[in-house]
Amino acid sequence: MKNAKISNAVINRLPRYRRYLIELEKKGVEKISSKDFSSLIGYTASQIRQDLNNFGGFGQQGYGYSVTGLREEIDAILGLDKEYRMVIMGAGNLGQAITKYAKSLPAGFRVCGVFEVRKELIGTELDGLEIHDYENLVDFVEREKIDIGIICVNRDSAQEVADRLCFAGVKGIWNFARVDIEVPPHVALEVVQLSDSLHALAYHMNDIKKRSHHGK
Amino acid sequence: MKNAKISNAVINRLPRYRRYLIELEKKGVEKISSKDFSSLIGYTASQIRQDLNNFGGFGQQGYGYSVTGLREEIDAILGLDKEYRMVIMGAGNLGQAITKYAKSLPAGFRVCGVFEVRKELIGTELDGLEIHDYENLVDFVEREKIDIGIICVNRDSAQEVADRLCFAGVKGIWNFARVDIEVPPHVALEVVQLSDSLHALAYHMNDIKKRSHHGK
Repeated sequence: MKNAKISNAVINRLPRYRRYLIELEKKGVEKISSKDFSSLIGYTASQIRQDLNNFGGFGQQGYGYSVTGLREEIDAILGLDKEYRMVIMGAGNLGQAITKYAKSLPAGFRVCGVFEVRKELIGTELDGLEIHDYENLVDFVEREKIDIGIICVNRDSAQEVADRLCFAGVKGIWNFARVDIEVPPHVALEVVQLSDSLHALAYHMNDIKKRSHHGK
Repeated sequence: MKNAKISNAVINRLPRYRRYLIELEKKGVEKISSKDFSSLIGYTASQIRQDLNNFGGFGQQGYGYSVTGLREEIDAILGLDKEYRMVIMGAGNLGQAITKYAKSLPAGFRVCGVFEVRKELIGTELDGLEIHDYENLVDFVEREKIDIGIICVNRDSAQEVADRLCFAGVKGIWNFARVDIEVPPHVALEVVQLSDSLHALAYHMNDIKKRSHHGK
């Protein structure tokens, strides 16, 4: 595997490739031509080849891709052959939502606890997970070998919570708070701004409406 | 306002501009130079100018941007000056998570009901919202003037649920199901694949680790 930095656009397409490969596996498909894969997934065959060439190819001339083989390669590239241990920061509406969501998470991602500052919530349970005292975060991360912190606190606390998670030694942060945060270079950061997505949806709805009035 | 199609990349940056402008408004900042806005948000000043020029500009030479003025313009572009009425499709783990999340949604987006096929859940409540019979979706969407359907069903049902929502007359679909769906051109579609984001996080964590072993 090359050690060159792969662009985020490529990385963000891999999970999508993987979803389609899993669907194909379920249907019992063993191999697929890059042309068929392309029309299924909606990227050009050349885009797919280019993306996968970042990791050394995998297709065979005149054969196409082995569905399971390619899915396994993508699993290895994404690091899905390991287990990840996670904590949820914040037991408010957002933390409750993500704790609930975590029940439908792909295998390999396991929530080990929820952390809160509000004393009255500490020691209670959220969907079967214990709510711990934020003061004990650093010890917990170390003892339980936590890899990922999921930030579900309000915007004013998000950076401080991220700082403490990084200090405690997590390797990745999944940020749901409605504010951009910064992490040191040795920590990975992925941001989910659900309200940004909803705002984009509102835009597209209005754009379609405007076009249908202006157009034709 | 021009009637040319604006690229998705630009649309997806607008909610982010808006978040920063709201933070500035809270701090009482009235105007900001494109240079200061640029260093705050992390895009180049030229990128920001280019993005906003799609909608006719808004900055004044030698003055910069009016914070509230620009935020209001973006609200109008995104269509956030209206109210959107939404339904959540599916009361499983994902539907429960999104219903919970909806409590922290920005103003203007209102969930009016949850829909299910499982008879034992119909008529019960989820976080204060009534769970309705999927069979009554079309009537409900029409009567309650529903704009957006939020798909939280499993992958096998997602397309059928999308089809029925579109038939019922929603103008937008927010898809959380772990499968790609298709909608007719007069319906807007936004997709949130939370597990894709988590997979990208796993990749970046492993990439950082690999680099720190190889590098130096």
